[in-house]
Amino acid sequence: MNCEIIAVGTELLLGNTVNTNAAQLSERLAMLGINVFHHTVVGDNPARLLEVVKTARSRADLIITTGGLGPTYDDLTKNILASAFGKALVLHPEEERFLRDYYAGRGHPFTDNVLQQAYLPEDCTVFHNDWGTAPGCAFESGGVHVLLLPGPPRECLPMFDFCAAPYLRALSGTTLVSRQIHVFGMGESAVEAIFRESMERMTNPTLATYAKEGEVMLRVTAAATDEKTAAAMCEPVVESVADTLGDCVYSVEEDSLEARVLTLLRRNHQTFAAAESLTGGLIGARFTALAGASEVFLGGAVTYCDDVKADVLGIDRAILCEKGAVSRETAAAMAESVRRMTGADFGVSATGLAGPDGDGVHPVGTVYIGLAAADGTWVRPLTLHGDRSRIRTLSANHAFDLLRRKLTGLPLLREHDKSR
Amino acid sequence: MNCEIIAVGTELLLGNTVNTNAAQLSERLAMLGINVFHHTVVGDNPARLLEVVKTARSRADLIITTGGLGPTYDDLTKNILASAFGKALVLHPEEERFLRDYYAGRGHPFTDNVLQQAYLPEDCTVFHNDWGTAPGCAFESGGVHVLLLPGPPRECLPMFDFCAAPYLRALSGTTLVSRQIHVFGMGESAVEAIFRESMERMTNPTLATYAKEGEVMLRVTAAATDEKTAAAMCEPVVESVADTLGDCVYSVEEDSLEARVLTLLRRNHQTFAAAESLTGGLIGARFTALAGASEVFLGGAVTYCDDVKADVLGIDRAILCEKGAVSRETAAAMAESVRRMTGADFGVSATGLAGPDGDGVHPVGTVYIGLAAADGTWVRPLTLHGDRSRIRTLSANHAFDLLRRKLTGLPLLREHDKSR
Repeated sequence: MNCEIIAVGTELLLGNTVNTNAAQLSERLAMLGINVFHHTVVGDNPARLLEVVKTARSRADLIITTGGLGPTYDDLTKNILASAFGKALVLHPEEERFLRDYYAGRGHPFTDNVLQQAYLPEDCTVFHNDWGTAPGCAFESGGVHVLLLPGPPRECLPMFDFCAAPYLRALSGTTLVSRQIHVFGMGESAVEAIFRESMERMTNPTLATYAKEGEVMLRVTAAATDEKTAAAMCEPVVESVADTLGDCVYSVEEDSLEARVLTLLRRNHQTFAAAESLTGGLIGARFTALAGASEVFLGGAVTYCDDVKADVLGIDRAILCEKGAVSRETAAAMAESVRRMTGADFGVSATGLAGPDGDGVHPVGTVYIGLAAADGTWVRPLTLHGDRSRIRTLSANHAFDLLRRKLTGLPLLREHDKSR
Repeated sequence: MNCEIIAVGTELLLGNTVNTNAAQLSERLAMLGINVFHHTVVGDNPARLLEVVKTARSRADLIITTGGLGPTYDDLTKNILASAFGKALVLHPEEERFLRDYYAGRGHPFTDNVLQQAYLPEDCTVFHNDWGTAPGCAFESGGVHVLLLPGPPRECLPMFDFCAAPYLRALSGTTLVSRQIHVFGMGESAVEAIFRESMERMTNPTLATYAKEGEVMLRVTAAATDEKTAAAMCEPVVESVADTLGDCVYSVEEDSLEARVLTLLRRNHQTFAAAESLTGGLIGARFTALAGASEVFLGGAVTYCDDVKADVLGIDRAILCEKGAVSRETAAAMAESVRRMTGADFGVSATGLAGPDGDGVHPVGTVYIGLAAADGTWVRPLTLHGDRSRIRTLSANHAFDLLRRKLTGLPLLREHDKSR
């Protein structure tokens, strides 16, 4: 099944909104074994939308639209699609009832425009909107399946997962299962070089690599008639990749280093705290973005200037003077101090230069990551490249990586880390 | 001039990469007075790319492609575009020299594939790539202008700004100037309701509203033959909008609340520190993402659990017991304490429930934002809606807003804040 995703909305063409739906839906469609060959964005313009739909119909057998289902005058997706595929719009009484209740409950006036949302193409499958007001739907015409989804991601994505995905799964008869292997500490080209030959050879399951900031992800996907068979087909590939890449593989389940750390700490009933200099709170912010963080994260200190390192964390001013804030010794003292102050099982720290300005001594990208535990303190020295944002992101990645290595009994430092 | 942006890359269709380039380029093109009518994404497939280019040529007079200019076998954009527009590819010796130096300097082998990057369509304007290796270019054929840009945003966007924008400006003869008015504390529908009539009436300058998380932005855009005239045409509209919306307008220059706070603190030579509970470091992380943050941000404490509030910040345990961590009193004590401990001019604090789980007493979204200064302490109580991520983002927004109000002498609390 070949799919085109059409996003409707002038705000996308003005660049005020990024079309994240297309990527999110594509990822989900790939998991269903559906090929996406085109993404198209068009504004709230009837003639141009109609042309885009005609082109899509000529090259895809599944068209998914996002946006333009709401109650305002520029919401025209439903009308154009229904007319392009020769479907009348009919009132759906259950949707009308839902809308009337919804608006009455909020004291909003119920206008004709609002009621428009309850009109849907004849013979369609209604996707009730539990996350907003405008329902979506699916219909078939001349061998082409058309799915209309709302634009806001917080409505579009759950509607896909709860309504559209089951609809599409019923159409295909094939089940796909994917496993993601998350890698930290190797570049994409190095990983790709190792697996290139097998990636080209394999057909079912398939293996592919993807880069994300400072990390690499491999995806194994198998197709079979049922989920259990497809899952079993993935296993040997996952194991073989994990064996080959060794301890650079941080997880097959959790999709971020911090999520891996959360799982490990919860399992051990242990806690950590962070002392952050160049990351300025990013380690804590990323970790506490995860639900359940409060079970294992106690907090810590953001020591952006030297006085705070000394006054709040109690770092010896002699260390700051002699070794400098950007040093192995300061990183170690920060990690030890935040561990002691909070009573956490582990203290992590990050100090360094994110740029754009240097300190006249170290180049931008010089970073030290510290880890303090009951049985010792370790410091990983780094020379990072990229802009301020990348250096901060990678620093936080390394802090989580050091902690996950400690929690899984892996070697904490590379040979050359010890000598620097 | 009507533009279509074509992004080339299978990784976009698999959903592994979000097409942020399209939004970023569209925003820049709007500033140049160029209408973008279509975004298209197509994979690394010669036949489908050629079809997409043919469709684009039939409806646009400016085609911008992103991606597919690199040295690997699936980088085919240049070949397809050149052949679609009947242009031969010719070797550019300066680009060859640059590539040879670049690869030699890094000890990478110089293969035939690498050299392919120095071949560009005949008669084109070369966009030298100062941010990577593959050059971009622009050419004209049959009244259609074609611009080829690299895919990675860190190459694509600077190449647009430094090479493509001047090329396009020379083509048009019209200069557009835009001013952004940033608003916090009013919803988009309320702002839109105030200006709807004038927005529909105005043609030059134009006025439009955009929502971003918890904020609203208005954009005034004027077209004229020169920049000075266009800028002067914007001024009265900016003033009138600012007068109407009053102190909800936080800036016409800085594009975030934290950037506004940075400007104000720098101007006053003042500093702040943060005590963060539910935001877990987000206030610090967002602020320190700004270059220059170290001049005015001292750091602070992340007090994710009560013991850390007491032990690190020295919050009176009686307050935590009697009033609870999520209370006006705790927010005030956190702000005062972090100010005192760091010696900052201002202390800000955030405590509350981001969810998904509540504490059995307060509903999720109950948040208190504190501000301590030499002349007093203020607490803004909030009842926020949305998911964990939104509640944390809005909490940080309110912390920055409270500080910017203090720094500009505005009323700090709304009437109903005082009674809660």
